[in-house]
Amino acid sequence: MKPAGISGIYKEGICERQIDELAMSSKNKNIRDLYRGINDFKRGYQPRSNSVKDENGDLLADSHSILNRLKNYFSQLLNVHRVNYVRQLEIHTAESLVPDSSPFEVESAIAKLKSLSHTLMLVPNLHWIVIEDAESPSSLVGKLLKNSGIAYTHLTAATPKQWKLREKESNWKKPRGVLQRNTALQWIRNNLKADVAQGVIYFADDDNSYGLEVFEEMRDTQMVSVWPVGLAGGLMVEMPVLDPKTGHVTGWNSAWRPERPFPVDMAGFAINLSHFLKHPEAKFSFNVESGYQESEILRHLVTQEQLEPKADNCTRVYVWHTRTEAPKLQSEKQLNKKGLKSNAGIEV
Amino acid sequence: MKPAGISGIYKEGICERQIDELAMSSKNKNIRDLYRGINDFKRGYQPRSNSVKDENGDLLADSHSILNRLKNYFSQLLNVHRVNYVRQLEIHTAESLVPDSSPFEVESAIAKLKSLSHTLMLVPNLHWIVIEDAESPSSLVGKLLKNSGIAYTHLTAATPKQWKLREKESNWKKPRGVLQRNTALQWIRNNLKADVAQGVIYFADDDNSYGLEVFEEMRDTQMVSVWPVGLAGGLMVEMPVLDPKTGHVTGWNSAWRPERPFPVDMAGFAINLSHFLKHPEAKFSFNVESGYQESEILRHLVTQEQLEPKADNCTRVYVWHTRTEAPKLQSEKQLNKKGLKSNAGIEV
Repeated sequence: MKPAGISGIYKEGICERQIDELAMSSKNKNIRDLYRGINDFKRGYQPRSNSVKDENGDLLADSHSILNRLKNYFSQLLNVHRVNYVRQLEIHTAESLVPDSSPFEVESAIAKLKSLSHTLMLVPNLHWIVIEDAESPSSLVGKLLKNSGIAYTHLTAATPKQWKLREKESNWKKPRGVLQRNTALQWIRNNLKADVAQGVIYFADDDNSYGLEVFEEMRDTQMVSVWPVGLAGGLMVEMPVLDPKTGHVTGWNSAWRPERPFPVDMAGFAINLSHFLKHPEAKFSFNVESGYQESEILRHLVTQEQLEPKADNCTRVYVWHTRTEAPKLQSEKQLNKKGLKSNAGIEV
Repeated sequence: MKPAGISGIYKEGICERQIDELAMSSKNKNIRDLYRGINDFKRGYQPRSNSVKDENGDLLADSHSILNRLKNYFSQLLNVHRVNYVRQLEIHTAESLVPDSSPFEVESAIAKLKSLSHTLMLVPNLHWIVIEDAESPSSLVGKLLKNSGIAYTHLTAATPKQWKLREKESNWKKPRGVLQRNTALQWIRNNLKADVAQGVIYFADDDNSYGLEVFEEMRDTQMVSVWPVGLAGGLMVEMPVLDPKTGHVTGWNSAWRPERPFPVDMAGFAINLSHFLKHPEAKFSFNVESGYQESEILRHLVTQEQLEPKADNCTRVYVWHTRTEAPKLQSEKQLNKKGLKSNAGIEV
């Protein structure tokens, strides 16, 4: 049930209706509500956000009105209790299914997802699409998402057995997250329209470390934006190389498979939502070599020349390709052989 | 310069003066200020928090007054720009020093510290003490702490050469973080007084995954509280075993060195600040066997019988002992041999 593929859509200037919908979601913990409220309202105080609107959708320009709206908004939040409307949707795949992941993998996935959720809780106007690699959505992941207060969509897509990594098989032997990311992309295509959708698609991973800056940088992506990724591709920083005069991407500093059309890490680019929706052929594939997933989707969406460099002309690192160790659970395995387990009766 | 030892003090019902001081700190980014404001104010809306006070320190009881205070507070936040007062303090140790950590370690440490900072940003009334294992505090860590908006103290303590792990030496060969944690504890002793200090000491680690719940659970610790830790000690969950009748800790389910007086992970307990200050002998030591650091400090502070079980009588997991892989940077090492590096001119 490991949540392998996680996609985030980052909405910008999104229609008010949807914001209201999000504000109505996941009201089961006051602490979360408050952060949600803040996430929505903070946009009013940031230079790059456009407006604070009142209950009727009218623009508020002076600080007095804005603060009053804030007061009313908090007042509403304080009076709403446990509205359990959460947009949730399940997609069951027709693929042949494999046994569920081990309890170790589940526990480790939950721990990592929890850390990632704290980063995403600090990002305004984010919709988190989480795809579990499982037959049906687990209550553990569902509870975590609900408690985070983040607007989310919880889907499942079970990797076919022939594409699952065997124990001790290297990470790069088989493409990972292809089906999960494509499931997220299909959900986006099914639920949003190119002519009205505003936002950015970003492929997040529960192993990586994200600075909050990266979510701000990607916000005004027109087609596809790119930036440096720390600790990726065997380098301290893997990144686009820019022409100092034009500021366009002219190449890459990648050392691993530099011949790839787009030698960039999954954490190093974002796609404009509307632009993506105009290209139905853009997706990931099981039929490309290791390291070519990013190139596979990007070749349908952008040329190297068109890429939009972010992070101060690619001079700053805001995201790192960190990896979490597989937990070492020798004692647990010995217990299991005796029919015992350390976590009987324990809730995560 | 790896920040090896990190300690958090979690203040409860702390004096208003200090909160005001914290609110004045680190005002260099509006987004952070807002979260800080929230962290302070949220306590007013949580059942366990006692009060919202107005500018004169008087208690506000009705929702109208509370919301007005909120409005004023946000108004103040909006009008304060870049106040750079940050409580910062440097301790230089007299120990023999060793060369700085490699750039890989620095980069990896920053990535992990950033993720941890996002979790801590969501915890109200937290003071973060960060100890760098370095001769002098790095600007990278300093910038990260300042930008987080969290109240912090940034110290250094360089591990003596004979206690540094050599390359490929196992983690458990030499005690880690002893000097750093003791430096934090000494800072606490130097700066706080037992008769007025309120709060809880918790030893956080940038590798672990923390649910926000754990910070709430530890808040009312009287002496020493304990709870389960996921993926620790070779088990799915390592935890205290309670007497079902009395609710007291009667033992542990630990499989690794279960003969230890307190076979508990560093992430599995918290100490009342005032109680700690009354026991000047409580600290960590280089002269104990692997796995005995927790027992070393706890033996001065508490008996097993006195431990306060948290997390619904130790039936829930709110923290996981995850570990981050050392980054694989073969290509970078090859570049370095040629006198090159991937990150020339790049800022983290």
